[in-house]
Amino acid sequence: MELNDIYRLIEDELEEVEQSLEVVADVDSPLLAELLKYTLKGGGKRIRPALTLLAGKFHLYDSALLIPMAVAIELLHTATLVHDDIVDGSPVRRGKPTVSRAWGENKALLLGDYLFAKAGSLAASTGNLRIIKLFSQTLMAISSGELAQISVSFDLPGARECYFNWISAKTASLFATATESGAVLSRSPEATVQALKDYGHNFGMAFQIVDDVLDFIGEEVELGKPVGSDLGEGIATLPSILFLESHPEDSLIRGVFGKRNAESVPLAVDAIRRSPAIDECLALASDFCARACRALDKLPDNNFRQALLDLASYIVQRHR
Amino acid sequence: MELNDIYRLIEDELEEVEQSLEVVADVDSPLLAELLKYTLKGGGKRIRPALTLLAGKFHLYDSALLIPMAVAIELLHTATLVHDDIVDGSPVRRGKPTVSRAWGENKALLLGDYLFAKAGSLAASTGNLRIIKLFSQTLMAISSGELAQISVSFDLPGARECYFNWISAKTASLFATATESGAVLSRSPEATVQALKDYGHNFGMAFQIVDDVLDFIGEEVELGKPVGSDLGEGIATLPSILFLESHPEDSLIRGVFGKRNAESVPLAVDAIRRSPAIDECLALASDFCARACRALDKLPDNNFRQALLDLASYIVQRHR
Repeated sequence: MELNDIYRLIEDELEEVEQSLEVVADVDSPLLAELLKYTLKGGGKRIRPALTLLAGKFHLYDSALLIPMAVAIELLHTATLVHDDIVDGSPVRRGKPTVSRAWGENKALLLGDYLFAKAGSLAASTGNLRIIKLFSQTLMAISSGELAQISVSFDLPGARECYFNWISAKTASLFATATESGAVLSRSPEATVQALKDYGHNFGMAFQIVDDVLDFIGEEVELGKPVGSDLGEGIATLPSILFLESHPEDSLIRGVFGKRNAESVPLAVDAIRRSPAIDECLALASDFCARACRALDKLPDNNFRQALLDLASYIVQRHR
Repeated sequence: MELNDIYRLIEDELEEVEQSLEVVADVDSPLLAELLKYTLKGGGKRIRPALTLLAGKFHLYDSALLIPMAVAIELLHTATLVHDDIVDGSPVRRGKPTVSRAWGENKALLLGDYLFAKAGSLAASTGNLRIIKLFSQTLMAISSGELAQISVSFDLPGARECYFNWISAKTASLFATATESGAVLSRSPEATVQALKDYGHNFGMAFQIVDDVLDFIGEEVELGKPVGSDLGEGIATLPSILFLESHPEDSLIRGVFGKRNAESVPLAVDAIRRSPAIDECLALASDFCARACRALDKLPDNNFRQALLDLASYIVQRHR
């Protein structure tokens, strides 16, 4: 199933999100407008706003609240990408130069700050205090999670747990907020809110694991960035961790961490790619995906629930 | 008059702010706790939270709302300082190494993001939607103002207006939010809110001009950073602008802008310091200070109003 088929139910709403993103980029300052257009226009799969919209379909859907919220979620996501690319020194994202590479780190930093503020302003426009508090807590989780991550040195055992905590903070928290906010803003009963939040969290965990697998097995042209870029930056994601759990003394992979040993990276990527670690990662992603789907068991069996189930399957199968 | 004399009326409340800042730094992650402690402990004059507290004294003062708000304002301020120091490449602030210098730019960036989020979370805890919206709009003004500034090249005429727009966005907006939020959260009538907001804006303009003057005439030990650091970074503040308005062809000063010509900076600082530009700047700061004080004309003539008047005088006289 293609993403467009899954999105069919919320086609019009996603178009409104797209238009709202254009409005966000329509500001007086020419530089800010240029940066916003570059960052917000196309390229993204808009999965997070789609989740907010779908999660809003189970009770009293109100587009006046859900569209701004979906936009806020996408802006918060974009802001974290812009800042992440500074932190990681990434030259390329979605096949084009990152803002920090094209305009410099200073402008990227201030653009990210602006995007955080604009996202907060849109979340505030819903007038819902629970959502507003949730929104700032999500950014606290993301930034403190990233900080914790860059301060730990890789060490077995404990690496796997550390990785799960990290992706829970940096990725799953925003997916959980995306679905929770959709449910809350459509005034769903608390059980529905919790089910959709639970779905969002597990969806986010699966999403990040698959992303980290794709960094090893994907093609540069699809990834929009070089293969093995995490390993190249000395970052241990799940494939490296599972590989090292089976080969704790492997000097090739160990040599890469921390040292950014550029020459060994292709060899290390190849060793991991051909190891069972990849399938083990995908099995773990499938587990999270199954948990996400199970969370929806008690929701009404309608087209929107089916779309959420399809989206979860799509996410874990996009490596094929 | 000393700052402590002016603060006497809100001594206990400021102590509560200090304690709340310690609570903010009390987090699980050891690195984050260390960074927060380093950034939040001492050093600052706490002028912005003091303004929120004083502005809250004209109607129904509620410390359960005003203390968290005062803390939120100080955290937002601190976050912008941490990010500014990255953008400006500043090695020193308040006499100690900046976070970006001591821990690296990546950690400083994420710390700033965390502080923004924590500030937003505290503002949200007031439950006041007007304040919450104002808060994110303030961050939008600050970041877009900084972006606009780093993209303009110095050019007469227009430089003075450009400078006023810049400091209005980067500095005065937060002072205005500090006083406006105090007034709103104590449920002041709209005329009182506007008067205090107006005071905050003009106070902020005066404050920044004096800060920019001190960068030329202060002593390194008082400034906590080298003299002439703005000029050294190629940034045109009011003293340089007024100097160049009188000496449009001056090659010494012009040579410094944009080129970060380190050897000429002390000579340029000296030329500006001995010129009438300094007194002209201070006269403009006094104008803004007078406007700030006039904004309070219709407020009750009580100790709190007097404290605000004294604080404005203190600010423009701290160069002596």
